[in-house]
Amino acid sequence: MGQDKYSHPYVETATGVLGQVDAQAIPRYAGIGTFARLPQRHEVDDYDIAVVGVPFDSGVTYRPGARFGPAAIRQASRLLKPYHPALDVTPFATAQVVDAGDIAANPFNIDAAVDEIRVGIRGLLSRPGHKVVLLGGDHTIALPALQAVNEVHGPVALVHFDAHLDTWDTYFGAPCTHGTPFRRASEQGLLVKDHSAHVGIRGSLYDRADLLEDAELGFTAVHCRDIDRIGIDGVIEQVLARVGQYPVYVSIDIDVLDPAFAPGTGTPEIGGMTSRELVAVLRAMRSLNIVGADVVEVAPAYDQAEVTAVAGANLAYELISLMVG
Amino acid sequence: MGQDKYSHPYVETATGVLGQVDAQAIPRYAGIGTFARLPQRHEVDDYDIAVVGVPFDSGVTYRPGARFGPAAIRQASRLLKPYHPALDVTPFATAQVVDAGDIAANPFNIDAAVDEIRVGIRGLLSRPGHKVVLLGGDHTIALPALQAVNEVHGPVALVHFDAHLDTWDTYFGAPCTHGTPFRRASEQGLLVKDHSAHVGIRGSLYDRADLLEDAELGFTAVHCRDIDRIGIDGVIEQVLARVGQYPVYVSIDIDVLDPAFAPGTGTPEIGGMTSRELVAVLRAMRSLNIVGADVVEVAPAYDQAEVTAVAGANLAYELISLMVG
Amino acid sequence: MGQDKYSHPYVETATGVLGQVDAQAIPRYAGIGTFARLPQRHEVDDYDIAVVGVPFDSGVTYRPGARFGPAAIRQASRLLKPYHPALDVTPFATAQVVDAGDIAANPFNIDAAVDEIRVGIRGLLSRPGHKVVLLGGDHTIALPALQAVNEVHGPVALVHFDAHLDTWDTYFGAPCTHGTPFRRASEQGLLVKDHSAHVGIRGSLYDRADLLEDAELGFTAVHCRDIDRIGIDGVIEQVLARVGQYPVYVSIDIDVLDPAFAPGTGTPEIGGMTSRELVAVLRAMRSLNIVGADVVEVAPAYDQAEVTAVAGANLAYELISLMVG
Amino acid sequence: MGQDKYSHPYVETATGVLGQVDAQAIPRYAGIGTFARLPQRHEVDDYDIAVVGVPFDSGVTYRPGARFGPAAIRQASRLLKPYHPALDVTPFATAQVVDAGDIAANPFNIDAAVDEIRVGIRGLLSRPGHKVVLLGGDHTIALPALQAVNEVHGPVALVHFDAHLDTWDTYFGAPCTHGTPFRRASEQGLLVKDHSAHVGIRGSLYDRADLLEDAELGFTAVHCRDIDRIGIDGVIEQVLARVGQYPVYVSIDIDVLDPAFAPGTGTPEIGGMTSRELVAVLRAMRSLNIVGADVVEVAPAYDQAEVTAVAGANLAYELISLMVG
Amino acid sequence: MGQDKYSHPYVETATGVLGQVDAQAIPRYAGIGTFARLPQRHEVDDYDIAVVGVPFDSGVTYRPGARFGPAAIRQASRLLKPYHPALDVTPFATAQVVDAGDIAANPFNIDAAVDEIRVGIRGLLSRPGHKVVLLGGDHTIALPALQAVNEVHGPVALVHFDAHLDTWDTYFGAPCTHGTPFRRASEQGLLVKDHSAHVGIRGSLYDRADLLEDAELGFTAVHCRDIDRIGIDGVIEQVLARVGQYPVYVSIDIDVLDPAFAPGTGTPEIGGMTSRELVAVLRAMRSLNIVGADVVEVAPAYDQAEVTAVAGANLAYELISLMVG
Amino acid sequence: MGQDKYSHPYVETATGVLGQVDAQAIPRYAGIGTFARLPQRHEVDDYDIAVVGVPFDSGVTYRPGARFGPAAIRQASRLLKPYHPALDVTPFATAQVVDAGDIAANPFNIDAAVDEIRVGIRGLLSRPGHKVVLLGGDHTIALPALQAVNEVHGPVALVHFDAHLDTWDTYFGAPCTHGTPFRRASEQGLLVKDHSAHVGIRGSLYDRADLLEDAELGFTAVHCRDIDRIGIDGVIEQVLARVGQYPVYVSIDIDVLDPAFAPGTGTPEIGGMTSRELVAVLRAMRSLNIVGADVVEVAPAYDQAEVTAVAGANLAYELISLMVG
Repeated sequence: MGQDKYSHPYVETATGVLGQVDAQAIPRYAGIGTFARLPQRHEVDDYDIAVVGVPFDSGVTYRPGARFGPAAIRQASRLLKPYHPALDVTPFATAQVVDAGDIAANPFNIDAAVDEIRVGIRGLLSRPGHKVVLLGGDHTIALPALQAVNEVHGPVALVHFDAHLDTWDTYFGAPCTHGTPFRRASEQGLLVKDHSAHVGIRGSLYDRADLLEDAELGFTAVHCRDIDRIGIDGVIEQVLARVGQYPVYVSIDIDVLDPAFAPGTGTPEIGGMTSRELVAVLRAMRSLNIVGADVVEVAPAYDQAEVTAVAGANLAYELISLMVG
Repeated sequence: MGQDKYSHPYVETATGVLGQVDAQAIPRYAGIGTFARLPQRHEVDDYDIAVVGVPFDSGVTYRPGARFGPAAIRQASRLLKPYHPALDVTPFATAQVVDAGDIAANPFNIDAAVDEIRVGIRGLLSRPGHKVVLLGGDHTIALPALQAVNEVHGPVALVHFDAHLDTWDTYFGAPCTHGTPFRRASEQGLLVKDHSAHVGIRGSLYDRADLLEDAELGFTAVHCRDIDRIGIDGVIEQVLARVGQYPVYVSIDIDVLDPAFAPGTGTPEIGGMTSRELVAVLRAMRSLNIVGADVVEVAPAYDQAEVTAVAGANLAYELISLMVG
Repeated sequence: MGQDKYSHPYVETATGVLGQVDAQAIPRYAGIGTFARLPQRHEVDDYDIAVVGVPFDSGVTYRPGARFGPAAIRQASRLLKPYHPALDVTPFATAQVVDAGDIAANPFNIDAAVDEIRVGIRGLLSRPGHKVVLLGGDHTIALPALQAVNEVHGPVALVHFDAHLDTWDTYFGAPCTHGTPFRRASEQGLLVKDHSAHVGIRGSLYDRADLLEDAELGFTAVHCRDIDRIGIDGVIEQVLARVGQYPVYVSIDIDVLDPAFAPGTGTPEIGGMTSRELVAVLRAMRSLNIVGADVVEVAPAYDQAEVTAVAGANLAYELISLMVG
Repeated sequence: MGQDKYSHPYVETATGVLGQVDAQAIPRYAGIGTFARLPQRHEVDDYDIAVVGVPFDSGVTYRPGARFGPAAIRQASRLLKPYHPALDVTPFATAQVVDAGDIAANPFNIDAAVDEIRVGIRGLLSRPGHKVVLLGGDHTIALPALQAVNEVHGPVALVHFDAHLDTWDTYFGAPCTHGTPFRRASEQGLLVKDHSAHVGIRGSLYDRADLLEDAELGFTAVHCRDIDRIGIDGVIEQVLARVGQYPVYVSIDIDVLDPAFAPGTGTPEIGGMTSRELVAVLRAMRSLNIVGADVVEVAPAYDQAEVTAVAGANLAYELISLMVG
Repeated sequence: MGQDKYSHPYVETATGVLGQVDAQAIPRYAGIGTFARLPQRHEVDDYDIAVVGVPFDSGVTYRPGARFGPAAIRQASRLLKPYHPALDVTPFATAQVVDAGDIAANPFNIDAAVDEIRVGIRGLLSRPGHKVVLLGGDHTIALPALQAVNEVHGPVALVHFDAHLDTWDTYFGAPCTHGTPFRRASEQGLLVKDHSAHVGIRGSLYDRADLLEDAELGFTAVHCRDIDRIGIDGVIEQVLARVGQYPVYVSIDIDVLDPAFAPGTGTPEIGGMTSRELVAVLRAMRSLNIVGADVVEVAPAYDQAEVTAVAGANLAYELISLMVG
Repeated sequence: MGQDKYSHPYVETATGVLGQVDAQAIPRYAGIGTFARLPQRHEVDDYDIAVVGVPFDSGVTYRPGARFGPAAIRQASRLLKPYHPALDVTPFATAQVVDAGDIAANPFNIDAAVDEIRVGIRGLLSRPGHKVVLLGGDHTIALPALQAVNEVHGPVALVHFDAHLDTWDTYFGAPCTHGTPFRRASEQGLLVKDHSAHVGIRGSLYDRADLLEDAELGFTAVHCRDIDRIGIDGVIEQVLARVGQYPVYVSIDIDVLDPAFAPGTGTPEIGGMTSRELVAVLRAMRSLNIVGADVVEVAPAYDQAEVTAVAGANLAYELISLMVG
């Protein structure tokens, strides 16, 4: 399969799934770029995990540009290899992972776009085992993602890595922006009450009430300034205790990383996590049942030497590896 | 005035108007940056020309970022000096020019934004002599600018510098985007029939019909490929013949310049005008009655060494100089 | 076709060919990026023109990086639209144009790579009507391209746009580098004797003999410094007179453009052509029988805001339009 | 106030002070940019803390460009919000904070500039409660700042964050450069003997004597390489023990941060502090009586995606928050 | 010579002079970089033309950074080859050209620096045939260069390529800055009265008097806006007529080029010359007796892909070629 | 010596060796740039440590460009000063350190290049005390470096800092690439069996077997993810225990640093070491007998504000300081 009908010689693995394009046959920088040089959705019969781009950034309040996030992350993902040594998994052989392309979302109408994204993701979750990893796009897209996941799994626990709470109410009258998805998700009952956590919070806020309201909505927050005190092990402990046994949705705003590690984003905040810390927390979540995830707010126009896009690609790879782990 | 009450020692000119901050007293790189280091609107009793930012870019179809255009153009405008040798005018002494700040426009609702921009510009045109130069922002803002100008002056002739026609109909169902302002303006009767011109058109189109419909809407187009044939003098002749004696609105999409001269924009097209050509055409328009103008689509995230923003600042300076000439 | 089986809703044109992804359905910045959002080779039964990437840059003598040229040009080609107004053609409806992906070439062995590229291109020319547009890659690739074209068409006339002659003999003992393809081609009898031309030559040389030997090999050169004297019309006249009625191969080294228009390349030379001039020359070649072409030496690591990649994409579009014209 | 007379709708806080422009009314990216979108000095009757730019960089020994620091920091400060959760303060409501514009300093005569800066800052300290936060400019400006502060408060304890000691003697015969302010300050009796500390020192030196002389001048140094050994708590302990109960001046050379966190500076040294560490040390200083402070050596021409300018803006925000804490 | 004693295998030419490092033996990107990979001054017994860096930028009024100009131009000059086809000369074989290193100039005291530069250049002109090409640094250095040239040759005709007149009087009290060298030179009798010309002037001025005073000082100006009217031939005619038979000093401020061609400079002005035009004017000056020259205001921190530095290197190469022509 | 004969006034130190150019006489940004402004090899009679560039990058599998590494590191090394406080050594006074220029290596033939590099380095090790620090170039160069070192010292212990193992077998049939030097070195008996260590390993691999084969080849690996668990002290302990008393070769691939600290490299991996960590490990190796070392994979085209080049220069400085310690 593949070699005859399609342009890329995907490696057919022992488990029968179609893996990446063979890097010994085609250099990594060559070929039309799917995520991790994996097959497209239509090139396989079925899949376990679909990586899908959501190039939508009309919900941003400061620097736009995340609409080019999926293209940049795909380009940066050419460096990903099949074996994940820290988790000791070979994700693209263990599961059929595909690049499902991008969901087209209306750039001029947020409500329409949210609906299009929800429908698009729902379509990727057509059987129970289907899992999805979104490449944003701005954080607005987490709301329709949670809506779609909810239709399949019911309320989920959320593990949300971000510099910001994203539980504001409205901005310029708009209920759905990149600063509001988790308030909306909470209001719509998409989250298991009191089993969600923010990790990496920092930076100035509008008001002390921001924190109080966030707690009332059922979130707990691990602030960045706590990390040195409780250590990464402490962070992991808090996260695992919080989510319990529920199905989990993981949302990673790339700005959870310090701007040194992720300059290409819209609302940078100093004092952030290092990529080593973030990866350590993620890898500790291997026992969880992650049913969906996103990596958002990669804005390539502000990136340098693909540093942010490479981070985005690797974080998606970590998420996939957790899903198959 | 100024020195006591405000932070900047504006030069009080012989004509009584308040000019730029004195560059012999305060280095050009110093001070909070208004356009050309001119007084703000509230620092003078009245004004002749108001420069106003419109940081709105929710109407773009490709690269966003022009919302940071006004800030970048202001920063780049620090280099502007009081005397324009080619036109032999001293615009900031001849007329009271002010920086009227930015118009706040809803980033999440194009229709609301268009209305806010129209109201904002209308407010700057409170007496007949008032003229306005907009710093965009994407090209969507030309529509509310023309609406406001129309309320004062009635239909105007449009001289539109751009790589693109901007007379498309809708895009993703939206009637007001950066690709549609002049079709809407034509439909709304804001333009004097058959007295408007596009200059600098080039690049691929959707269909041959794009050109036909544009002509039906009452526009004529000077294509970039014609310039070498008819020369800049030929371009000038066509433009002047077209607009006649009507009041004129000049709209400059920075992408009328070749990407070499203006890389920091959203939809670059090769084969464009040089800045020397553009300036030559503009200066030939000194006899026209320009009642309003804009410089749009400067997207700083794609700029290099302020090349595009410097172009934007100088083009605004040319427009002001024409208005006082 | 297309919509069901493949991920992208390609426009099915009146002529029956499968065109670009519909920009009214999917925003230009969305979707896995083929050249101009055209179908891949395996998505159609046959094709007229194949666009193919050749990500090989091991033949460079100064700045490497053109191996990322195909990916960058594809990304920049998202802005291309179906109708070419200057030539009044709709290339993607008139002919079936496809993205044939990239040819894998050995980065560590130039001779092996040259052979792989020749075989790859030959495979794309499997019936007489097939035409090919290469996206480089460094200029080394023009040699195997000419070899493959020769197998089908016999000797061709070459129109070569470049700052450099590329007829040097060897460099560090290597006969095939980006500075030597056209000496090798001449020696191998791939070119019709005395019917080939360089356009845009400039910059310092090793020796006066470089020019003499180039002439002896059967080339004529239009130097950049001649353009202002003879005009673009003069350049066109010389080119057309030179190539006569022979089948033509067009090779465009992006450094034929001045570094202002194409900073992202390996061996920049000042005093180059503008993109407007280059496009004007190309469009005058519409009567020629162009059987193959390339756009090479786009090195994205040195690019700014995709200026060079956008030029590369548009030049490929011009070439395709000439081929269908 | 504000709305009628001035261009920006500053939030009038419950405490009667005029705060930031309302981000719900005017997007953060809009409006002429004062620091943190705060009122200018002339827009309020009096103030508690004045933020003032000092765009002077004629004292640098390597990369210049910090003269554009104030403009870049102001632009980056648009993201600052009113509430500081880690310190639990609302600085712009607790105190009247203003942007006092820039001090004009002669770029061609260091001695004249030092005097102009001293006079300028002294003018901002016209009553005992006035505090000042300088935005540099290069580190030369710390000397006149200390001179002005001394006129009001007498000798102060200095907490100096920097990769470099800045206690060299002369360079090319000049006594006042960015490498010498604290030797001069010590010689001029501006510092309380033996109560000043450098934090973050690292990199190569001219001579072992540099350290000895620095100690003789009354400084102690916390080297970057000590941080992993003694921890941030150890650093804090040393700093607090050192400064005692004296009024404190805090001087932050942005190069105390590792170049990863602050690439946009003049003399980068590897092995630096992270922004999280720096902020942790600063926040532990809340009990101190900080009477003046600076953030210097932000050189925007070397910055990437405003990473350094955002750091500068946030550090100024931390300093203001400490002053009101 | 050379190969044994020094690290680089310079080509010994038929004329006995020591030329560039052999590009067939050592790749252009290799080796410690002198200008054009030429010998250093101490590696030859005598020389005809000395290229010398003057890394001084303390005279700038806006963006600093030209102190890194010589290093950047040297790096970019690696691409220069021995034969100049347009002038049909082999400059490095016809004359002994050397890289004389950099003149150390005090960055903190302009007067001291001017004197150091004058002495340094005078030292390079120790016999009548010696000629010098300076690599700036800012335009301040043209004054000491003219002083040194005057000591040898007496008053000279100046051909000055620049966007700006550089005949202002003082700025912040300083008589020697990058805006004043030619007024000082005129006052000091360094120029032959009424035989000097500015070429490429454009942009806004302080006052109409700027032009009048410039004319009174004995200059004529070819404005950029004239070029399209009189053509390059007209420019050449005016320049040649102006300088007559006098010894000539050529001063090239890189900002005479449009920012598209030279973004890396301190005070960019739109509407400038193309590099092709500039080179055409220069080449027409081959009959002149050029005794000294400079290329100034290359500020690498604002450059992109070495575009500006490559222009600087090539312009120095043109000047050298004219000197030997 | 030096001042008379050569262009730079090197400091003659008390120990009789010729040190850096005097920074009080010539500003750091001035002068033709050798590494750390040290003498060239031919400017001294003999030397202890030779710093030598190896601008070769034809062995890379992804982003090329390290051929410009030596030039960029030299330029960034201008900031290095003579005294290393952490190690309390004055390396350029304790030992005669020279810049031996670059080794010319064939860019088109890897085998030839490997041989040229081996010969070049061997030539620098002409007496037992000679030590060498290589500035790469890509990691391919470590193989000929080890071969040359072996000829003098026999098998050595390797301390290898890298994100990648670099013990792959072949890639596209080539045995010598930047991914294979240490497998080849092991096979060729260049390493003391079981006394070599990788430090900083991370990122995805091709197969679990990669790790097993690496161990079979005699390597141990300290993974980046272990650092937080065992601490830098633990890393040091493992390294020291591993290398024992053997002569040591230290190879630093700059990508051992996180991309935040070294964006300018070819195959970035997130989750890397900080420069503070790396320097701490290096400094703990002062008791070792380091006979040779390299710093490789600095690719300037991807760098930002010289961050990576500055790291490369400082790491070379650390290595030299260890060699003299």
